[in-house]
Amino acid sequence: MNPTHLLGPVLVLGSGLLGASIGLGLRAHGIDVVVSDPSPSAQAVAIDIGAGRAFDVSEDLAPELVVVAAPPDVSAAVVAGALKTYPDAVVVDIASVKVAIATELETILGADSELLARYVGTHPMAGRERSGPVAARGELFNSMPWVLCASESSSKHAVKVAHSLAIDMNAVVFRFSPEEHDSAVALVSHLPQVMSSLVASRLAETPAHALSLAGNGLRDVTRIAASDPTLWVQILGANAPRLLEIVQGVRTDLDRLITTLSAPTAPGARLDLAQLMAEGNAGQSRIPGKHGGPAQQYTWLTVLVDDKPGQIAKLLTEIGAIGVNVEDLRLDHSAGLQVGMVELSVLPAKRVGLVEDLTERGWKVIL
Amino acid sequence: MNPTHLLGPVLVLGSGLLGASIGLGLRAHGIDVVVSDPSPSAQAVAIDIGAGRAFDVSEDLAPELVVVAAPPDVSAAVVAGALKTYPDAVVVDIASVKVAIATELETILGADSELLARYVGTHPMAGRERSGPVAARGELFNSMPWVLCASESSSKHAVKVAHSLAIDMNAVVFRFSPEEHDSAVALVSHLPQVMSSLVASRLAETPAHALSLAGNGLRDVTRIAASDPTLWVQILGANAPRLLEIVQGVRTDLDRLITTLSAPTAPGARLDLAQLMAEGNAGQSRIPGKHGGPAQQYTWLTVLVDDKPGQIAKLLTEIGAIGVNVEDLRLDHSAGLQVGMVELSVLPAKRVGLVEDLTERGWKVIL
Repeated sequence: MNPTHLLGPVLVLGSGLLGASIGLGLRAHGIDVVVSDPSPSAQAVAIDIGAGRAFDVSEDLAPELVVVAAPPDVSAAVVAGALKTYPDAVVVDIASVKVAIATELETILGADSELLARYVGTHPMAGRERSGPVAARGELFNSMPWVLCASESSSKHAVKVAHSLAIDMNAVVFRFSPEEHDSAVALVSHLPQVMSSLVASRLAETPAHALSLAGNGLRDVTRIAASDPTLWVQILGANAPRLLEIVQGVRTDLDRLITTLSAPTAPGARLDLAQLMAEGNAGQSRIPGKHGGPAQQYTWLTVLVDDKPGQIAKLLTEIGAIGVNVEDLRLDHSAGLQVGMVELSVLPAKRVGLVEDLTERGWKVIL
Repeated sequence: MNPTHLLGPVLVLGSGLLGASIGLGLRAHGIDVVVSDPSPSAQAVAIDIGAGRAFDVSEDLAPELVVVAAPPDVSAAVVAGALKTYPDAVVVDIASVKVAIATELETILGADSELLARYVGTHPMAGRERSGPVAARGELFNSMPWVLCASESSSKHAVKVAHSLAIDMNAVVFRFSPEEHDSAVALVSHLPQVMSSLVASRLAETPAHALSLAGNGLRDVTRIAASDPTLWVQILGANAPRLLEIVQGVRTDLDRLITTLSAPTAPGARLDLAQLMAEGNAGQSRIPGKHGGPAQQYTWLTVLVDDKPGQIAKLLTEIGAIGVNVEDLRLDHSAGLQVGMVELSVLPAKRVGLVEDLTERGWKVIL
């Protein structure tokens, strides 16, 4: 069965950033959305911003879909409650771990419960630094991955409805088993999170003047170390077995590194060090390119601009006029002078021409 | 003595990316630059692009300054040779480690050698993904940190000349002792490099479909894992003792993480996990802001744009018109649809007005 648009009504349990954003997205399709949150203020904000309406105790609500947008710790219990309360509804959760929730759900309902046919675990991979319904936006999931993790119990109808939700949110649907999903996010999401935190932790005791030499490398590696501990403790705890396996591999490599650094002139030490770096090269090159396409080597070039409003716009306007698409763009943080460096990545085929055109137009280009 | 502009002639030994870029920068000031490289082809390219002239065997060259732009492994030997060959010249190296070179130099010349008065170790913190003279640009050091690491032996005159070189390159000068420098770069440069490589290594064996879920977090953390192993082996090897100390701290924290992940439901496990994350928050918040200013919390907001030339330019043109300075800007890599998300960071005070103005102008803004 192909996914269609949802008909509604849709009950969204939890009105945080994700729940309220789903409500807003569904309302944009004119779907009847009921929003409920244990926190009256969070629910009130979600309703104020148009994410849905309050539950009317007098009505006999028969939702087509219940979206459980609760913290990972309580998602299974809320899903179980929804499956029992709404006998005709498909129920999905959107927590960023899936096996632990499926297991807990089977513990609550019994592994052979017929109720499980109406449940599909999902994971929309979108989030923001900010949380809460005030940060919600209907476009939050636009073009982002939304993973459907159907279990063997999930009915085709339930999968179709879950798929329709992702489609209505303009997300890109992926189909993983719960185990595949948890292994994948342990690697691509949970590992970088913990490693970023471990690197950032080292900065806590540093003399400030040392940090004045910080460059983009440190900034990139530690950016996500600013994430919210409360949420991440739940995520990491729920996916501990899979993350543990990966982290133990990191520890093995870290011990290799420590061995080489402990005796850098010992026979083979440099070879081991080079091997560690080369393995990093190999892994990094496997990360897919923009828009989920195959990994592609873009050429970077850097243009100097005055650090004032309009300069970057002027540059990109001219690049647009030249007809080159900028694949990635970052501002280079540099100490002292008020000059910005704009790093652009473009398709290799476009580079030479672009550099010539920009230089002709008077831009200072650093290849 | 205040730094002035260099008078020249300047002899640049090594015509790779950095040496050739220094030559180009000095030539832009009309300074006589002689470029020499053990590789005839590298030297020829450097001279072709205008980084300087070839050494004339018939002339009696008396350089004001000799810049040793050789790989870290050989820098000390080249510095020693230059100090002996050119009795009136100040000699600087630009390698990214300083203590090991100073120590090796004292071994070669003797710790009390008068020649050491004319040497100053320096470290211009600029580089590119690409290497070699073809990638050289005179603006490479523009607004980037250039660390001067004078030793107790260094004469005031030598420091002044080294300082003048950095000024002529439009760099931002920092004064560190060699030990302070090596400790600082171990933390802000070498640690993120090795950790990024360790994370990226984990991706080598992964099923490709898992990597299809990769987001900005993974991309940021592994970006520098693409760096050149040959150069990094020399850098890490030369700064091994300082990096080792930091990496052992990481290992202690990694073992704390492994303990919590091994028994995530044990008493205190979640608290330890939260503690590790919170320590990362604390360290990350200490990284200085753009242009070496104090760390500042910018507000991020995201705008949806079509992924085609000119769209980002149009957005930034309007932001410029609104009069808001974009502190940082990144394109969000998202799977599937050809829609880009432009993440902008602006001063918190500017946010509300900017969001209103952009929304009025029809942009889809995600706070």
